[in-house]
Amino acid sequence: MTDMLRVKVKLGDNNYGKADVQLFKVFRDTPRHEVRDVRVRVAMTGDFREAHADGDNAGLLATDTVRNTIYALAKEGFASSVEEFGKELLAHFVQTGPRVTGGFAEFTEHLWARLPGEGDAGHDHGFVRQMPKHTVRVETTDGQTFAVTSGIDELSVLKTTQSGWAGYLLDERFTTLPESHDRIMATVVTAKWEYAAASCDYDAVWQRAYDQIQRTFTDHYSPSLQNTLYRLGEAVLSTCPEISRVWFQMPNRHHLRYNLERFGLENDNEIFHVDPEPYGLMEAWVERA
Amino acid sequence: MTDMLRVKVKLGDNNYGKADVQLFKVFRDTPRHEVRDVRVRVAMTGDFREAHADGDNAGLLATDTVRNTIYALAKEGFASSVEEFGKELLAHFVQTGPRVTGGFAEFTEHLWARLPGEGDAGHDHGFVRQMPKHTVRVETTDGQTFAVTSGIDELSVLKTTQSGWAGYLLDERFTTLPESHDRIMATVVTAKWEYAAASCDYDAVWQRAYDQIQRTFTDHYSPSLQNTLYRLGEAVLSTCPEISRVWFQMPNRHHLRYNLERFGLENDNEIFHVDPEPYGLMEAWVERA
Amino acid sequence: MTDMLRVKVKLGDNNYGKADVQLFKVFRDTPRHEVRDVRVRVAMTGDFREAHADGDNAGLLATDTVRNTIYALAKEGFASSVEEFGKELLAHFVQTGPRVTGGFAEFTEHLWARLPGEGDAGHDHGFVRQMPKHTVRVETTDGQTFAVTSGIDELSVLKTTQSGWAGYLLDERFTTLPESHDRIMATVVTAKWEYAAASCDYDAVWQRAYDQIQRTFTDHYSPSLQNTLYRLGEAVLSTCPEISRVWFQMPNRHHLRYNLERFGLENDNEIFHVDPEPYGLMEAWVERA
Amino acid sequence: MTDMLRVKVKLGDNNYGKADVQLFKVFRDTPRHEVRDVRVRVAMTGDFREAHADGDNAGLLATDTVRNTIYALAKEGFASSVEEFGKELLAHFVQTGPRVTGGFAEFTEHLWARLPGEGDAGHDHGFVRQMPKHTVRVETTDGQTFAVTSGIDELSVLKTTQSGWAGYLLDERFTTLPESHDRIMATVVTAKWEYAAASCDYDAVWQRAYDQIQRTFTDHYSPSLQNTLYRLGEAVLSTCPEISRVWFQMPNRHHLRYNLERFGLENDNEIFHVDPEPYGLMEAWVERA
Repeated sequence: MTDMLRVKVKLGDNNYGKADVQLFKVFRDTPRHEVRDVRVRVAMTGDFREAHADGDNAGLLATDTVRNTIYALAKEGFASSVEEFGKELLAHFVQTGPRVTGGFAEFTEHLWARLPGEGDAGHDHGFVRQMPKHTVRVETTDGQTFAVTSGIDELSVLKTTQSGWAGYLLDERFTTLPESHDRIMATVVTAKWEYAAASCDYDAVWQRAYDQIQRTFTDHYSPSLQNTLYRLGEAVLSTCPEISRVWFQMPNRHHLRYNLERFGLENDNEIFHVDPEPYGLMEAWVERA
Repeated sequence: MTDMLRVKVKLGDNNYGKADVQLFKVFRDTPRHEVRDVRVRVAMTGDFREAHADGDNAGLLATDTVRNTIYALAKEGFASSVEEFGKELLAHFVQTGPRVTGGFAEFTEHLWARLPGEGDAGHDHGFVRQMPKHTVRVETTDGQTFAVTSGIDELSVLKTTQSGWAGYLLDERFTTLPESHDRIMATVVTAKWEYAAASCDYDAVWQRAYDQIQRTFTDHYSPSLQNTLYRLGEAVLSTCPEISRVWFQMPNRHHLRYNLERFGLENDNEIFHVDPEPYGLMEAWVERA
Repeated sequence: MTDMLRVKVKLGDNNYGKADVQLFKVFRDTPRHEVRDVRVRVAMTGDFREAHADGDNAGLLATDTVRNTIYALAKEGFASSVEEFGKELLAHFVQTGPRVTGGFAEFTEHLWARLPGEGDAGHDHGFVRQMPKHTVRVETTDGQTFAVTSGIDELSVLKTTQSGWAGYLLDERFTTLPESHDRIMATVVTAKWEYAAASCDYDAVWQRAYDQIQRTFTDHYSPSLQNTLYRLGEAVLSTCPEISRVWFQMPNRHHLRYNLERFGLENDNEIFHVDPEPYGLMEAWVERA
Repeated sequence: MTDMLRVKVKLGDNNYGKADVQLFKVFRDTPRHEVRDVRVRVAMTGDFREAHADGDNAGLLATDTVRNTIYALAKEGFASSVEEFGKELLAHFVQTGPRVTGGFAEFTEHLWARLPGEGDAGHDHGFVRQMPKHTVRVETTDGQTFAVTSGIDELSVLKTTQSGWAGYLLDERFTTLPESHDRIMATVVTAKWEYAAASCDYDAVWQRAYDQIQRTFTDHYSPSLQNTLYRLGEAVLSTCPEISRVWFQMPNRHHLRYNLERFGLENDNEIFHVDPEPYGLMEAWVERA
């Protein structure tokens, strides 16, 4: 620090670890393989004051060691869900890092469907990548109890009718938008949820929540993205007793009816301009009452 | 141009138009809707010398007009494939632009599957976005005959076995890679193809080529990405007589067996590091002999 | 919600608004123009239960109105910093939205330098885009008092020497990394800070913090990214009394010495492979003691 | 290839190699370091029929060997410009690959400026990343003569006045855009150029072209992006006799005057919406007459 009077400072909340570890695990049953494809971030919290303030690394595990550990524990463990693997990783680092008291692990799982095979069950060892993604966050402050959040990323859905926007508050100066009773509703759902119990069949719950979100999106006339969001939450909580509360972020991917009347053409909700920016953005938790 | 001696220059090959037009068309049959979701670029070629050299815009259509035209013609035409819509657009601009003699239209079509509905046929008006994408390029020099290219983008596939890399040329100084007889092969297929005839059922051909690429990827032991590429081409040409030749770009998305033996663990092709960069990259045309 | 028993649910924390509003303001002094180029998100919090649960929009301002308001208030206000503009926006929405009790505004400002002009002061109305970016978040729960955070995004820096990594904790099984006493240190700094007072000259503080970060990055031998992070924090707090605490996120953009000895070549820290993934990732607050 | 009648096919144009090799070279003069930071793609052409058609790899160098070679030759050569390094790489592969007859090398160079140091000359070994980027493509069909193209990527510029759009062609049906005599002109310049001679001081020419593009962008009233493009070309060719012709791609990054009159506010070219899509897109070569 050149040419300045130093003031007294201290370290606040901090963490460190390895991010964007690209781990791929094959489960080689004969003849049918399964795959797990995850991007992993592991961050440790604890007493790292000396490393920061004094440049003394004696209490720090190298992030390269964190990486090695992720791959090694993926071999020794990671037998079921990504969520359970997250707990295994954090328990390990709290146990083996003398200064580590907690941390978090974040995962983005790319999902792969089977390529076509000889029967209806798909190919044994050939796969094709799917949208959306499965997300997981596991956090601990003691290495023994874990807060788990699971979710969905990049689920892009739309419906071409059964949606409108009317009866809203008018700002006397700045409201110019006309009402609509038949519009396209399009969004990219990001969801995450917390669990009621310390453990459950995470993959089964994810599949159930994912199916329910897809079904509920179309089962009603939508007066607003907010109301559809709430209905998605209600459906997830109703079908997944394992989930205690669920959060959604839903951008309104505006599909604007293009003004063709200027050209002597009628546009009966056929031709739209997809406007990527700006977008309405809604976020909410839906909880058990 | 400040402070310099001007040399004599002239305009070379040039084009202009509108890019990234986000067009969405709904076909509202009752009760079942269909959708087309395309990003469009239209570029015109012709005699635009005066605009460039003299700043005289009299011969230039505004690109805003190009945009309006794309939406209007999408209403009046665009009854079947994206490829035919490309021809309609280019024919229009050559016909109405006094200085326009040709041009090209490029499309990236986002594909939407139906959300689950009551039966097996999917929902009537609810959709979920899919990978991969459908690409199209149409080009003309006269507004009447058209060179059409169609393709596939972002088809991400892998197989967990039945692939190796051996028997290759050794550079005495720089070759360090060991042979492999059982590896993961992963790639993101980009394909494009040209047609033998002036027109055909483009959507049907696309679906057939797409299915064949997915099936052929797994139907052989692959000694190299080059050989698999060639087999994909052979399969497409064998099942699609409408296609005259086909090109592939296939990166080798390396899945590297992680060295766990250092930690006293066996890694029997179970645990891999996905290395995003660098990657082997193969490009080739496969043609009728 | 088809085919299920509804459980009782309620709305939890929620907000909505407009995101990715791309606002550009020109200050047209004669002859010298200034520009502000910001991406804006405004989110409102309050009592929006009826809209979510009952589909009654009477309490909701359209996000389109939010957009109009942002542009209109940018004309009427936005006379000084982005931070003050954030306060103006939030104060407005709390005042005019009957159900709005608070909210937050987030900005990413693209910075433009002047193109070369006749003298040293740069061009009067010509600009060229710069890295890094200026970020701002303003939050309120009453529309009258505001928590302001400012920061820096995408400041990509490196030093080719005066950095090492040694003396770290060895995991007996999983540590394989050798020590280094002369390596490249490269990172992309993300910083954000909070303020000690309700208001200050935000632009001047940003410039001072930005300058100090750039200077401090090179003024010491770095035993770890953590120590450099801490020194950056100490420098910012020492030169900016307006700032109460500062947070950094710093990935370790690994530059790996390429093993050329295999080829009979010495590599005296000359030839490196830049490994984009995975990366070490450090986050910490530095606070006044 | 399952269940189909094979047709006869043959291999067409093809190439393979390594892409996205992230090479970083430090020139360690004492005390002042220089750096080169390039993303490299090398593709080889030649007789690779047997590998594709027969699965016989005997004529193929592994792309991993290509990577090793790039790093090794960066140590042994790469003494001056990226362009000369491209020639060295291609000459090597044609010379050592028995089936290789030509190929191309593509580079994207990230540019780093010096961080502030003690004097005005900047820091000796501390650097900060800059926009834009330097691009290079070198191609050969014999390993001895080379076609070199250099260019600029992501040069984002704008001017807040001295630009308009008027006098353009009216389409009687589809033109709705009003004329403008004072607008913002913003673009992201992509340029590339060819050389008159087999070799020259590539870095000096790049700097001269880059400076000239920045200066010329503001030195005239612009009636169209096409005219400004042409003037940039004229300026480059006038100041760089080494360059034989130059190509530009320039999107029109529309800054749309926001309609504030609806709200009783005047908008004297102060408040703009930046519309990222769609955009006008212009491409042209400017050549010596």
